[in-house]
Amino acid sequence: MDRAALNAFLDREFPQIAGQIRVEALDQALVARLIVGPQHLRPGGTVSGPAIFALADVAIYLAILARIGEVALAVTTNASVDFMRKPQAGRDLLADCRILKLGRTLAVGECLIRSDGGSDIVARCSMTYSIPPKRA
Amino acid sequence: MDRAALNAFLDREFPQIAGQIRVEALDQALVARLIVGPQHLRPGGTVSGPAIFALADVAIYLAILARIGEVALAVTTNASVDFMRKPQAGRDLLADCRILKLGRTLAVGECLIRSDGGSDIVARCSMTYSIPPKRA
Amino acid sequence: MDRAALNAFLDREFPQIAGQIRVEALDQALVARLIVGPQHLRPGGTVSGPAIFALADVAIYLAILARIGEVALAVTTNASVDFMRKPQAGRDLLADCRILKLGRTLAVGECLIRSDGGSDIVARCSMTYSIPPKRA
Amino acid sequence: MDRAALNAFLDREFPQIAGQIRVEALDQALVARLIVGPQHLRPGGTVSGPAIFALADVAIYLAILARIGEVALAVTTNASVDFMRKPQAGRDLLADCRILKLGRTLAVGECLIRSDGGSDIVARCSMTYSIPPKRA
Repeated sequence: MDRAALNAFLDREFPQIAGQIRVEALDQALVARLIVGPQHLRPGGTVSGPAIFALADVAIYLAILARIGEVALAVTTNASVDFMRKPQAGRDLLADCRILKLGRTLAVGECLIRSDGGSDIVARCSMTYSIPPKRA
Repeated sequence: MDRAALNAFLDREFPQIAGQIRVEALDQALVARLIVGPQHLRPGGTVSGPAIFALADVAIYLAILARIGEVALAVTTNASVDFMRKPQAGRDLLADCRILKLGRTLAVGECLIRSDGGSDIVARCSMTYSIPPKRA
Repeated sequence: MDRAALNAFLDREFPQIAGQIRVEALDQALVARLIVGPQHLRPGGTVSGPAIFALADVAIYLAILARIGEVALAVTTNASVDFMRKPQAGRDLLADCRILKLGRTLAVGECLIRSDGGSDIVARCSMTYSIPPKRA
Repeated sequence: MDRAALNAFLDREFPQIAGQIRVEALDQALVARLIVGPQHLRPGGTVSGPAIFALADVAIYLAILARIGEVALAVTTNASVDFMRKPQAGRDLLADCRILKLGRTLAVGECLIRSDGGSDIVARCSMTYSIPPKRA
């Protein structure tokens, strides 16, 4: 799936998320943007942990779909996140993802998250997804 | 802080969350409830990973505050989550938390999450929080 | 498999480890002991991180075998460890394990590790194992 | 500290490890080698999980020292590891590390581990270290 197909998939399957998260670029890596809005903020104007988690989860999932095609039933089985710095106020977040393993039943990916326009890493996430067996 | 004080803290500091997450019980462990609504669901009616993450993050944070009092600036530095089973459709989620370490600068807690009325574990989460130094 | 069978399995399949790690108790939970020796220590007399990791990995693996029988080919796919306190010098370590999920292809367990005779938690570990499909 | 200084540090402070793990290269990233011997192997000739963990832990620790100088008392507080593929039999392992955060009290690094001569990733590890306050 290419970038347009991934965004169309988001629009169709995850309409609540599609307005918030978009695929920006796709080559070896996939870059996804969280369009930060009031619903993502904590007191003080910083993006919440769950919003960062949601970005990572969707972005790595899409990076897997980019490689294996639409598998709407793949599920996250494990996530590990290091929150390292406060995101910059008033900026979107960008997640830079790559797939480390694409096995028959498990896929593993990771991403680094930065504020748009910044170089410091806000968070690091790795996630494992269970891929359902192919239907005959 | 007791159960009422923690819920009042949520109402005051996290108004967007206060209607969704409540402290149910507090003794050795803290039990928090996610009042599941449409905004937490994925296609198929299952509670989303980010909603589960948010419940764990808030619940363990409150379990720390229950022990050390209001520290609004404690921040999550690390999270590890195993998603093990689909939550039951149409049920709230309950997070059962305990604090494993309460150090001078780091606190570590964990929780097990189940569907209300169920015994199977939906997710296991452990989280580390950085506690800011006391002001003089 | 009961306690004796698990220790016999260690003796037979993991002879390098069998003299260092033993199953102490097995009911709902499994308790394993690391018989601490010079090879486990870091300068200062504290047990090394890799030795703690090894104890957790073997102990949770054995807790799975206790439930599903000998599956020598199950492999660890993910591990998350929080190191919380220095172990007490000159004491063995005890790992208290339980299985949280025993699926068809994945098993998840966790353990808390303490110094023998102590109540403080030294480390918390959760691990996922991939279980090979049954041979016909 | 440069590569020679890091290897000298290993020789002096961690003599049990110094013969097994060496710093190979150091620029933006640090590359460390596990000289695989019989003590690292599991039945079947594969490198054990604890040996992979030990390589990651030492390598990321050295990558931090390379930046902040000798801090022998920094301790690992959290580790997350994804084991993705069997290492190739009879090959050393190489860990490619980078530091993601170097704060006043916490440092976070990650590494990817491959078999020497291979391109597939055997394991991914991220680790957090607590840095003791500077003495006056």
